[in-house]
Amino acid sequence: MPHADLLECFDNPTPGRPYVIEHVSEEFTSVCPKTGHPDFGAVTLRYGPDKLCVELKSLKLYYQSFRNEGIFYEAVTNKIADDLAKAMRPRWMVVRTDWKGRGGIRSTIEVTLGDVPGR
Amino acid sequence: MPHADLLECFDNPTPGRPYVIEHVSEEFTSVCPKTGHPDFGAVTLRYGPDKLCVELKSLKLYYQSFRNEGIFYEAVTNKIADDLAKAMRPRWMVVRTDWKGRGGIRSTIEVTLGDVPGR
Amino acid sequence: MPHADLLECFDNPTPGRPYVIEHVSEEFTSVCPKTGHPDFGAVTLRYGPDKLCVELKSLKLYYQSFRNEGIFYEAVTNKIADDLAKAMRPRWMVVRTDWKGRGGIRSTIEVTLGDVPGR
Amino acid sequence: MPHADLLECFDNPTPGRPYVIEHVSEEFTSVCPKTGHPDFGAVTLRYGPDKLCVELKSLKLYYQSFRNEGIFYEAVTNKIADDLAKAMRPRWMVVRTDWKGRGGIRSTIEVTLGDVPGR
Amino acid sequence: MPHADLLECFDNPTPGRPYVIEHVSEEFTSVCPKTGHPDFGAVTLRYGPDKLCVELKSLKLYYQSFRNEGIFYEAVTNKIADDLAKAMRPRWMVVRTDWKGRGGIRSTIEVTLGDVPGR
Amino acid sequence: MPHADLLECFDNPTPGRPYVIEHVSEEFTSVCPKTGHPDFGAVTLRYGPDKLCVELKSLKLYYQSFRNEGIFYEAVTNKIADDLAKAMRPRWMVVRTDWKGRGGIRSTIEVTLGDVPGR
Amino acid sequence: MPHADLLECFDNPTPGRPYVIEHVSEEFTSVCPKTGHPDFGAVTLRYGPDKLCVELKSLKLYYQSFRNEGIFYEAVTNKIADDLAKAMRPRWMVVRTDWKGRGGIRSTIEVTLGDVPGR
Amino acid sequence: MPHADLLECFDNPTPGRPYVIEHVSEEFTSVCPKTGHPDFGAVTLRYGPDKLCVELKSLKLYYQSFRNEGIFYEAVTNKIADDLAKAMRPRWMVVRTDWKGRGGIRSTIEVTLGDVPGR
Amino acid sequence: MPHADLLECFDNPTPGRPYVIEHVSEEFTSVCPKTGHPDFGAVTLRYGPDKLCVELKSLKLYYQSFRNEGIFYEAVTNKIADDLAKAMRPRWMVVRTDWKGRGGIRSTIEVTLGDVPGR
Amino acid sequence: MPHADLLECFDNPTPGRPYVIEHVSEEFTSVCPKTGHPDFGAVTLRYGPDKLCVELKSLKLYYQSFRNEGIFYEAVTNKIADDLAKAMRPRWMVVRTDWKGRGGIRSTIEVTLGDVPGR
Repeated sequence: MPHADLLECFDNPTPGRPYVIEHVSEEFTSVCPKTGHPDFGAVTLRYGPDKLCVELKSLKLYYQSFRNEGIFYEAVTNKIADDLAKAMRPRWMVVRTDWKGRGGIRSTIEVTLGDVPGR
Repeated sequence: MPHADLLECFDNPTPGRPYVIEHVSEEFTSVCPKTGHPDFGAVTLRYGPDKLCVELKSLKLYYQSFRNEGIFYEAVTNKIADDLAKAMRPRWMVVRTDWKGRGGIRSTIEVTLGDVPGR
Repeated sequence: MPHADLLECFDNPTPGRPYVIEHVSEEFTSVCPKTGHPDFGAVTLRYGPDKLCVELKSLKLYYQSFRNEGIFYEAVTNKIADDLAKAMRPRWMVVRTDWKGRGGIRSTIEVTLGDVPGR
Repeated sequence: MPHADLLECFDNPTPGRPYVIEHVSEEFTSVCPKTGHPDFGAVTLRYGPDKLCVELKSLKLYYQSFRNEGIFYEAVTNKIADDLAKAMRPRWMVVRTDWKGRGGIRSTIEVTLGDVPGR
Repeated sequence: MPHADLLECFDNPTPGRPYVIEHVSEEFTSVCPKTGHPDFGAVTLRYGPDKLCVELKSLKLYYQSFRNEGIFYEAVTNKIADDLAKAMRPRWMVVRTDWKGRGGIRSTIEVTLGDVPGR
Repeated sequence: MPHADLLECFDNPTPGRPYVIEHVSEEFTSVCPKTGHPDFGAVTLRYGPDKLCVELKSLKLYYQSFRNEGIFYEAVTNKIADDLAKAMRPRWMVVRTDWKGRGGIRSTIEVTLGDVPGR
Repeated sequence: MPHADLLECFDNPTPGRPYVIEHVSEEFTSVCPKTGHPDFGAVTLRYGPDKLCVELKSLKLYYQSFRNEGIFYEAVTNKIADDLAKAMRPRWMVVRTDWKGRGGIRSTIEVTLGDVPGR
Repeated sequence: MPHADLLECFDNPTPGRPYVIEHVSEEFTSVCPKTGHPDFGAVTLRYGPDKLCVELKSLKLYYQSFRNEGIFYEAVTNKIADDLAKAMRPRWMVVRTDWKGRGGIRSTIEVTLGDVPGR
Repeated sequence: MPHADLLECFDNPTPGRPYVIEHVSEEFTSVCPKTGHPDFGAVTLRYGPDKLCVELKSLKLYYQSFRNEGIFYEAVTNKIADDLAKAMRPRWMVVRTDWKGRGGIRSTIEVTLGDVPGR
Repeated sequence: MPHADLLECFDNPTPGRPYVIEHVSEEFTSVCPKTGHPDFGAVTLRYGPDKLCVELKSLKLYYQSFRNEGIFYEAVTNKIADDLAKAMRPRWMVVRTDWKGRGGIRSTIEVTLGDVPGR
């Protein structure tokens, strides 16, 4: 079951300098709680680290923990944003999910926390 | 016949947080009221939800209800925007239709309601 | 209702010379007889004319006549091939339909009549 | 001969609401007044309608009237902008022409009238 | 658990005529039996039907049944080919799986049964 | 008016050696004899020269001579093939025209003379 | 030898109206003064004309005059900007050169004069 | 140092059936023995397994062992083919290397062993 | 071992004029300090030169010195930025690294120094 | 001046085994003998080596020697084929030149010597 505890962090090597980290996973899958059919999508995490950075392997395992979870698009995206915010306390963060089509409609959900530079 | 009543909504799971939802349907068709020939296009809905989100299956059925409707590009786009605004009352919304070429000219219509972030 | 009689032909200007004609329509739609939902696809007609060529406007109207017809992928493709073969009596013909995804699966059906050059 | 009178307009169905209309024609041709050789390009019209919208078929015929006209890139673009501004009186307008290469150089001309949103 | 019994077939509407059916699913996932990590890929089925065609919804459910199955690339591909051959008895068949990269290497497995036309 | 006399040739520098020459013009336009509207397309000439090669500038002028000619797709393609065959007497030749869409259908016509290598 | 005198100008047909002209040449070559090897790149000129516009054929000949000139990337770009500024006196101007890779590194140099709109 | 002993194999699950396996690695690097500079490329292995299949992780480690090896394009490709042929004894095999450009020239080397189907 | 001393600079030919230089290297490789496996990526350097510009060949050799260095994504990017800032003292600088996927996740790190124009 | 003597060869490391070598140079330029304007193109050399392989740096210098040579497309291609055949005596060889457009027409010339596998 997905939980923020699955996420491990390491110390930001240059905590005083603002910079940008982006991780894109194109192999995300969860289950539609209404139909029981699998959903497939991509998750893009973009953030400005403060004291901590998320460790890549733990991020992969955290994403994999959604595999058999029945959860809506909007809830997935908000939960990932909340869990990562809790684990890393970044300066700012964007979490975007891009879902393959269902019934001829493809969807994108984007959650933003803090002041994203360049917007 | 297309009608806002076809649209069903569900409660926004995180109503206090501003975020973005986008649904793209590339399988839209209506009928040109002048020539009687079918028009084909894509509809992109992008919005910031307030209390309600539009339910995907009802959105699909709503779009399908235009199938045999004689209606101009501009009117389709404005009607979709009005019906969705009435059903969801979003913080802001963009409805864009991209139409395949007629007589060697392809067209795009874009209606914006409220303050779209990043513009 | 789709019918071979909708197809009009004109005399092949160079009936003694083997050559190739291809017409691609990316704006085809019919209805799934099982679910009642619309199907969207592209129809590619490729043929070697003998005495007759199919007239383009009549081909467009013939394709449009499938708009509200409940018919499976395989049946659409075979019917188009049969109707065109009856109307034009070509040397050879290929009819291919490419359908947008349903349930995450996109499909292609291809019917071939006569000896297609280069195969 | 190209003339603003060829352009027909219809009443904007939602004159009080600011929105965007774009028409792209990739089949534009005129003649180079210096060499007599044909020029090929695309014309993109993007505007915010006020009381009137340009009718698509008249726009196509207006563009076709340049077919045998000897006229430079800059003059074509400015004339189209002037004629459309005279016919429609839009809130704002962008006319861009993209020309295929001549002597290894391809060119773009863009004329802007009024306050274009998002710039 | 994946099993040929999940596959349902319907009667080929034109059993006497050789033609081609292709179904592409880009949403396939199973589990690596060695590492326990999920594998993601696409499955392409191409066949010449004889008396039976595979029904699309049952094909989707059959593919979904691999979701939590620990199975190697080669075994997945051969099992799909065997199960479909048993269910449909096609004239010929190609099953190809295209897997996303693991350790910087992406893989394709292709199994062919019978005489594939054009090879 | 288009005429084979517009085509100029030069001596093939290596007449004893079989090789391949291809010229692609993406700036072809003629007029539909039925509607009077312009048609736009590309012409691909591919041939094996014997004693003569067609000179590029004369080929351009020959293509330009179709600009205001009312002529069908099939007739354009066959006329170009006949005129070039008469002017150059090549070992083999392929003339293909690819036309932009009309009424949602785009077309290709291909005429082949002699034994094309690799088919 | 490259010289601003090679550049010819013509009167801007609409000197009072701000608009944009862009010319892209993908066939630029000069010589590396260090290694003697040829450099290949593209030159993009984008400007807002004031009283004068650069004539296209003279621009082509001016670019060709760098063909056997030993000159660094940075110097080429600055020289083109200086020569064009001297010849045309534009309201604003951007000159960008995009160079094919050398030693696995590809480079871009961009010089801006005046206030470029939209930045 | 690269050596065939690094390659591990597993038993082909369906040894009696001819099928195709392809592994593409886009992260290959070795060193040019002449200049000492690194070379970067992709290695495509395509084969028909007999009794054995190469194990993916060992293949990755085998490719990595070329990292600091001074060796020419042609020799790399032939050595990989020889080592894999010795380890797996496939029915047929193709090894292709695609190298990023050096001095403006990019290269491909392809070695084929046995009868490759479809050629 | 990577060191700022490997970087050589030359005098900016137009030190008083603000302009932009970008160098993209798609052939960067280092080693993951955790797993010992090689990492592959691209490095994009974009800067506004002040008195000095970095010499291209020395930049290539500097990048190559990371080849067998065990170092994390974040540290590589910050070190390159620090070393280049020390060597060139640019007006502003952006260093971005784009890494190929590991475990299905691909990453980008971007460090910015000074006021980047257009942000 | 271009001459076969510029080409250096090295011994084929596996002379008994048939394999394929391809070198693509996208930075070729010569001069049109009629107009004096530069021509730009790409040269693809594909061959099956016998006793000798062409050395890459000498191939680059040989191609560069055409830089200021007035020579037609057909003659360039045949001369390159003749010079390389004389220098390497390959089992078979294909030389193809792809030229950027002149007057809206882009051209390809392909010369083949010996029996090219797979044709």
